[in-house]
Amino acid sequence: MDFSIPPRVEPIVRRVRAFVDEALIPLEPRFLNGSFRSLLPVLAELRAQVKAAGLWAPHLPQAYGGLGLSLTEFAHVSEELGRSPLGHYVFNCQAPDVGNMELLMHYGTEAQKRTYLEPLARGEIRSCFAMTEPEYPGSNPVLMGTTAVKDGDDYVLNGHKWFATGADGAHFAIVMAVTNPEAEDRHRRASQIIVPCDTPGFTLVRNISIMGEPGSDHASHGEIRLENCRVPQENRLGAEGEGFRLAQIRLGPGRIHHCMRWIGICERAFDLMCTRAASRKMSSSAWLADQQAVQHWIAESRAAIDGARLLVLHAAWKMEQEGAYAARVEISTIKFVVANVLQQVLDRAIQVHGALGMTDDTPLAYWYRHERAGRIYDGPDEVHKWVVARHVLGKYRDAGAA
Amino acid sequence: MDFSIPPRVEPIVRRVRAFVDEALIPLEPRFLNGSFRSLLPVLAELRAQVKAAGLWAPHLPQAYGGLGLSLTEFAHVSEELGRSPLGHYVFNCQAPDVGNMELLMHYGTEAQKRTYLEPLARGEIRSCFAMTEPEYPGSNPVLMGTTAVKDGDDYVLNGHKWFATGADGAHFAIVMAVTNPEAEDRHRRASQIIVPCDTPGFTLVRNISIMGEPGSDHASHGEIRLENCRVPQENRLGAEGEGFRLAQIRLGPGRIHHCMRWIGICERAFDLMCTRAASRKMSSSAWLADQQAVQHWIAESRAAIDGARLLVLHAAWKMEQEGAYAARVEISTIKFVVANVLQQVLDRAIQVHGALGMTDDTPLAYWYRHERAGRIYDGPDEVHKWVVARHVLGKYRDAGAA
Amino acid sequence: MDFSIPPRVEPIVRRVRAFVDEALIPLEPRFLNGSFRSLLPVLAELRAQVKAAGLWAPHLPQAYGGLGLSLTEFAHVSEELGRSPLGHYVFNCQAPDVGNMELLMHYGTEAQKRTYLEPLARGEIRSCFAMTEPEYPGSNPVLMGTTAVKDGDDYVLNGHKWFATGADGAHFAIVMAVTNPEAEDRHRRASQIIVPCDTPGFTLVRNISIMGEPGSDHASHGEIRLENCRVPQENRLGAEGEGFRLAQIRLGPGRIHHCMRWIGICERAFDLMCTRAASRKMSSSAWLADQQAVQHWIAESRAAIDGARLLVLHAAWKMEQEGAYAARVEISTIKFVVANVLQQVLDRAIQVHGALGMTDDTPLAYWYRHERAGRIYDGPDEVHKWVVARHVLGKYRDAGAA
Amino acid sequence: MDFSIPPRVEPIVRRVRAFVDEALIPLEPRFLNGSFRSLLPVLAELRAQVKAAGLWAPHLPQAYGGLGLSLTEFAHVSEELGRSPLGHYVFNCQAPDVGNMELLMHYGTEAQKRTYLEPLARGEIRSCFAMTEPEYPGSNPVLMGTTAVKDGDDYVLNGHKWFATGADGAHFAIVMAVTNPEAEDRHRRASQIIVPCDTPGFTLVRNISIMGEPGSDHASHGEIRLENCRVPQENRLGAEGEGFRLAQIRLGPGRIHHCMRWIGICERAFDLMCTRAASRKMSSSAWLADQQAVQHWIAESRAAIDGARLLVLHAAWKMEQEGAYAARVEISTIKFVVANVLQQVLDRAIQVHGALGMTDDTPLAYWYRHERAGRIYDGPDEVHKWVVARHVLGKYRDAGAA
Repeated sequence: MDFSIPPRVEPIVRRVRAFVDEALIPLEPRFLNGSFRSLLPVLAELRAQVKAAGLWAPHLPQAYGGLGLSLTEFAHVSEELGRSPLGHYVFNCQAPDVGNMELLMHYGTEAQKRTYLEPLARGEIRSCFAMTEPEYPGSNPVLMGTTAVKDGDDYVLNGHKWFATGADGAHFAIVMAVTNPEAEDRHRRASQIIVPCDTPGFTLVRNISIMGEPGSDHASHGEIRLENCRVPQENRLGAEGEGFRLAQIRLGPGRIHHCMRWIGICERAFDLMCTRAASRKMSSSAWLADQQAVQHWIAESRAAIDGARLLVLHAAWKMEQEGAYAARVEISTIKFVVANVLQQVLDRAIQVHGALGMTDDTPLAYWYRHERAGRIYDGPDEVHKWVVARHVLGKYRDAGAA
Repeated sequence: MDFSIPPRVEPIVRRVRAFVDEALIPLEPRFLNGSFRSLLPVLAELRAQVKAAGLWAPHLPQAYGGLGLSLTEFAHVSEELGRSPLGHYVFNCQAPDVGNMELLMHYGTEAQKRTYLEPLARGEIRSCFAMTEPEYPGSNPVLMGTTAVKDGDDYVLNGHKWFATGADGAHFAIVMAVTNPEAEDRHRRASQIIVPCDTPGFTLVRNISIMGEPGSDHASHGEIRLENCRVPQENRLGAEGEGFRLAQIRLGPGRIHHCMRWIGICERAFDLMCTRAASRKMSSSAWLADQQAVQHWIAESRAAIDGARLLVLHAAWKMEQEGAYAARVEISTIKFVVANVLQQVLDRAIQVHGALGMTDDTPLAYWYRHERAGRIYDGPDEVHKWVVARHVLGKYRDAGAA
Repeated sequence: MDFSIPPRVEPIVRRVRAFVDEALIPLEPRFLNGSFRSLLPVLAELRAQVKAAGLWAPHLPQAYGGLGLSLTEFAHVSEELGRSPLGHYVFNCQAPDVGNMELLMHYGTEAQKRTYLEPLARGEIRSCFAMTEPEYPGSNPVLMGTTAVKDGDDYVLNGHKWFATGADGAHFAIVMAVTNPEAEDRHRRASQIIVPCDTPGFTLVRNISIMGEPGSDHASHGEIRLENCRVPQENRLGAEGEGFRLAQIRLGPGRIHHCMRWIGICERAFDLMCTRAASRKMSSSAWLADQQAVQHWIAESRAAIDGARLLVLHAAWKMEQEGAYAARVEISTIKFVVANVLQQVLDRAIQVHGALGMTDDTPLAYWYRHERAGRIYDGPDEVHKWVVARHVLGKYRDAGAA
Repeated sequence: MDFSIPPRVEPIVRRVRAFVDEALIPLEPRFLNGSFRSLLPVLAELRAQVKAAGLWAPHLPQAYGGLGLSLTEFAHVSEELGRSPLGHYVFNCQAPDVGNMELLMHYGTEAQKRTYLEPLARGEIRSCFAMTEPEYPGSNPVLMGTTAVKDGDDYVLNGHKWFATGADGAHFAIVMAVTNPEAEDRHRRASQIIVPCDTPGFTLVRNISIMGEPGSDHASHGEIRLENCRVPQENRLGAEGEGFRLAQIRLGPGRIHHCMRWIGICERAFDLMCTRAASRKMSSSAWLADQQAVQHWIAESRAAIDGARLLVLHAAWKMEQEGAYAARVEISTIKFVVANVLQQVLDRAIQVHGALGMTDDTPLAYWYRHERAGRIYDGPDEVHKWVVARHVLGKYRDAGAA
C-alpha cells in the first residue's frame, strides 16, 4: 500500500501546473466571454509552446509524439489540465479526440493510422464521435436508427445523430451505424465507420444550443444528418458488428479520463471558493471565511474531493493491473460519484461567490452549466448505479439467496 | 381553516393559464434561441392582447389599470404566469418593475406618480433598481459606496452598481445611495433616488454576462457607473435616510412574488418531467416512467412543490392579515425553501430529459442556469436562515435560557 | 383561503398543552428509564383526571364519551399530545386502539360495539391489530399466510403475526385472515375477525425486542401464533372478504393520525433543541446558539415542520371535504414527508445535545430509535412514493403520452 | 502508487474473518437480547481461543503478546473485527483499553507498565478513560471542572465525569483533571492520572441509560463521581500539565481505530442488506433486489464505503509516514466522513429489512442506536469540519488574502 505520487510524474505535474497558471488561466476571460473559434490562433500558439516544452499529448505513446504516461500517471497530469477549461485542448488530450486516438491506435489499419491518427496526434486536425441519437435513449445502446448498407465496395449511411462533440470544424467523424441488423446478438449489429466530414450527405445541421450557447469549433456539440452518405468499406474501424465492443473499450478509459478532469475542475473551484472566502469582507471585522456554513462547505468539499480522487486513482490502478473489463464496476462507481461531487462543489463555490458566481467573470458558471451533463453523458448516474448493484447483487443471487 | 382557491380568482386563473399555454409557450423557442430584444414587437402585441382581455397587471389596483387582486389572490395567477419565462413580462408584473410600482404607489409624490408610475403601469416604459454593488456584500446592506451629495436643489450621485435587472432599455433607475453618511443609525444613511437613465453621468457599463449570456433589454442585468450624475432632489423617493426602510418594504412582498413565480416554474418543470417520463421509451416495452428512480423523483417533487406552495400561500395570507413586518420570518422561510425546491425540481427534470435537458430545446436549461441566482439575490439562503433562527432563538434567550 | 386555527379548538388545545406540560412531561423520566407496566397505576390516575377535565378521547363522538372533534380539529390537539410519548395513551387516542375504535364504530354490529367498542372508548380495555406477518412483505397485502376456515358456526384461525402493537395486555385482537382463498380478486380473500386474547390457541410468543427493548403492555409489539384458534363467525368485522377494504379504510385516517402525532414530536424535539442551544455555553462568551450550523438546523427544521404541518392539515381538510379515497394521494404524500422530517429533526436535536442526546435523560433517544419505524410501518416510504407517482403519471399516460 | 493489501496481512485477515464468522456472529443473538455481563464466561473462552490461535491483540507489539501490526496493516484486521459488535473485545483491541494501552506503552513508567499495561495486554483486567464532563462541552477541552490537588505525595481528586466507556467492571480509570489551574497556556492545565476503581471516593454513579439500555460491564458508559479521591502522585501519566497533549496523542490513532471499525460495521450492514434484498420476495416473481431504489442504495453504499475505506487507509498511511500531527487534518476528515457514511448505510440496511430491521433479530438496530454517537464522541462532526476548514483556509489567509 503506497499512496505517493510516482516520482517520474512529479516534475511533469509541476511544469503542467505552471503552464496552466501562467498561460491558460489568464486566457479564460476571453474564452468565457467570446467564441472558441476566435481563440484558435492564440490556442495554436500555445499548442506549439506545449510541444516545444516537451509536454505534448501526455497520454500518447512516445512513438506518436506523446509522453507515454500510464493511466495512473496521466491521472495526475489530467487533474492539472482540468483546472482550466482550455487545458486538455491545448495539450491535445481533449475528448472526443483522445478516445478516437485510442480506437485508431488499437483497431485502426495502417492506412487509417496514417490518414487519421497521425495528424490527430500532431494536433493538425480534429475529429468527432457520432453515436447518440435523439430518437433513442443513449442508456440503451442496442436501440439505434442509423444504418450503413453495403453497396459495392462502399457503405451508404443514413441516420440522425446528435451530441457529437466538436463536430463543428472536425475533419472526420467516427459513426456508429447498424451494419448487421439481422445479427442474433443485438450487441453485434453495429459497426464503427470513419466518415470524413466533407463527404456528400454528411450535414452538420446545427451546433446544438446547450445551456444558452451553441458554441463553436471544438467547444460545441453537433446535430448531424447522414443522407446517403457513401464511404469505402475500408473506412470501417475493426471487424463488422464490433461497434459496441469498440464503444465499450473506448468508454472505459474515457470515463476515467472524464473523472480525472473533473477532479481538476473540483480543485480549481475549491481554490476559487477558498480564495473568495478568505478575501471577501462581510463587515469591517469579519470575512466570509469566518462563517461556519462556509467552513463546513470547505471541509465537506475537501473530504469529498479527496475521497473521489482516491477512488479514481484506484480504478485507474485496477484497470492497469487487471484490464478494463475487471475494472468496469470501479469505473461505473467513479462515473457517478465524481460527477456528483463536481456538481456539489461547483454549487457551493458559486454560493460563496454570491452574485459574482453567477457571472462569467469566473469559470464557475461555465462549469456549472456545462458539467451538469457529466451526470448524463457516457451513461447517466442511474445506469452506472445499476451496473454496480447488478454486479454486487449477482454474487448474492448466485449464492442461492435468490 | 379553508384551503380552497378564492372563487373570484378561479376564472382569472383559468384564462391566464390558457393564454400562457396558447400564446406564450409556443413563443419560447424563439426566446430561448434568440435575443429578448428581437422579441419586443411580438411581445408588444401580446401585451395589447392581455390588456384587451382584461387581464393586465393583475397585481395593480384597478385605478392603475390592474385587476386589483390581493396578494393571496395574485399568488394563484403568478404561479400560472411563472410557467413560462415570458409570463410576468407580458402581463406587466415582472421584477423589478413590480417592486418599483409598489414603491412609487406608496411613497411617490403626485409628480413622481404621474411621471414614472403611470407609464410603468401602462407598460410604456420599463425601470430598474440599482442597489447591489460589486465591492460590497449584498448581505450586509449598511455597506454601500454610492453617494448622493446635495448641491443646490440637486443630488450629485457617484458610485458603482451591478445586477440592476433590465437596466438595458430602462427609462429610469431607482438608485440606493448614501445621503446621510453621518447618521448614527447605520440603517438611516441611505436614500432611494429616481435617476432617469439618460441623465449625463449615468452609464450602463455592460450587460453582465451571466451563465453564458449577457442578454438584452428586460432579460439582462446591468453594471452601472454613476459619475457626477445630477438629478433634482425632488427625485428622492420618500424621506431622507429612508432608503433601507423602503428597500425592506419593497423586498418583503418582492420575495413573496419571486416565490410565487418559482412555484409556477416548478409546476412547468414537473409537467415537462412527467410528460417526458410517460412518453420516452427505454426499450420496446418499458417507459422512462416505469423506472422507480423516476417515480421517486416525481413523488418527492410533487410533495416538495405542494409543501412549498402552502408555505407561500400561508406567508402571503399572514402578510395580508398582519402586515409585512409580522410576516418577515415566514417570508425568509419561503425565500430559502422555495429557491431550493426549485433548484432540485429543475435538476431532476433535466436528468429525466437526459441529453435533451441540457439543450435549449426546452426551457429547463434556461431556468437551471438563471434561477440558480434565486438562492443568492434578495438575500442568500444563509441570511434568511439566520433571520429565522434569530427570531426563534430570541424567544429562548429572552426566556432567560441564555 | 384561511389558515387560522378553528376558534372552538383553541381553548381545548391550550388546556391539553398545559396538561401535557404539567402532568406528562414530568413523568417522562420514569417512562424512559422504567417499564410501561410499572406506570400503569399512575397512568390510570391521569386518565381519570383527563376524563374529569372533559378532555377524554378528543377524536370520539360525544355519544361515546369523546369530544367529537373533526379530523382537522383533532389535528391540533393530536400535535399537542404528541409532544410527550405518553400523550395519546393518557387521552385514550393511542394507536392501534384509535383505529380499532373507528372500525368498530363504522362496521361493528351492535353486539360488537357493546362488547368491544364501549369498554375501549371508556379506556377499560385495550386491543391490538394483527395484520403483518414475518414471512410476507407488508408492502404487498395480498400475500398472507394466516387462514380462517369455517367450521360450524365458528372460524378456526391458524397463522403467524408480528408487530401487533400493544398485544401484551390487550383484551382482544382484530386479526386479518384469509377466509376466501378462492376469490378471483386477490383483494377480496381476507376478512377481519375479532379474537379475544384469551382464546385457546392464541399465543403471544414474545414482545419483540425492538431497538434494544422488548417493552411491555401498551408500549410493546407482539409476535403472535394462532393455532386452531376458534371464534364464532359473528366475530367477523364487516362482510366476508372485506378485510382489505376495511384495512384501507382504517389506514387512511390512521396515517393522518400518525402524521399529526409526529408533528407534535417534531415540535417537542425542536423545543428541546432550541432550549439546549440557548442555554449551553461553549466558552465563557459563546453559546451553542451562536453557531451558524446550529442556527441553520433550527431554521431548516422550523421550515420543514411548518411545511409538513400545512401538508397534514391540507390532507385532513381534503379528507373531510371529499372522503378518504379522494385524499389518498395527499395521505401517501404526508406519510413519507412527515416521517422523514421527523427523523431529520430528531437527528439534529440529538446532535445539538451532544452526548446528552444519546442518553435517556431526554425523550430524544427514545423517539430516535422507535420512530425510525415511521418510515416502515403503515407502508414504507417507497410504497407511498409509488402511490403518488402512479397517480401523477396516470394522468400523463392516459393523455396518450404512453 | 499501490493499492494492494500487504501480503503478510492477508492470511491474518482471512483467519480473523473466519473466526468472526464461525465464533462471534453465532453469538450475537445472545449479545443483542441479553446482558454483556452474562456473556463474560463464553467471551473468556473465546479470548483463550484467539490467544491459542496466535491472533491476540493484533495492534500490540510482540513484546506485549500482540501481532505487532502496523497501523495500515491493523486497519484490514480491524475492519474484519468490526463486522461483529463482539470482535474487538474478543481480540483485546477494544476501546477504550486500546487507547489506554498506547498511552501506558509510550508514557507509562516501568512501574505503571508492570501494574497496569501488562495485565491489560493479557486481557486480565479492563480500564476506562474519564475525560468528558456533563457540565462542560466536550468540544472545548479547556473547560474542565475536575481537579487534582497535591497533598503530600498524593493527588486528591474531585470532580464529575461521564461517558467513561466500560467503567462498570474496570480495574482502573485514567482521569483527566486540572492540576495546574494557574498555567497561562490553558492547554497545559490538566494532567492524566491513573485512579484504581476501588479507590475510596471513586464512585460509579450509574451506567448511563443510552438509547434505551444502561448496558453492563464493557458494554456500558459510566457516570463517575470523584470525591476526595486520593492516589499517589506517581500515578500521574506523563509530565504535569501534559494531559491535553496526551489526550491528543491518544485521540489521533483512536479516531483512526474507530473509523477502521466503522468500515467493518458498514461492510456487515451492506452484506445484510444485500442478503436480504436477494432473498426477500415481494411477489411471486419479484425480489426486493429488483427494486431500483434498493439497487441505488446498494450502489451508493458500495461507493461510499469504498471511498471511505481509501480515505481511512490513506490517513493511516500518512500517519505512519509523517506522524500523527502531520495527519491531523486527514484524521479529522475521516472522523466525520466515515461516521456519516456509517449512519447512512445502517439507515438504508434497516429500510431494506423493513420491520425486521427495527428488531434485535439482526445487529442493525444495535448499531443504528449506538453508533449514532460516532458523530458526537471524540469530537463532533462540527469540530472536525472546523479543523479541516481552518487548516485549508489558513493557507489562503497567510497568502495575504485576508
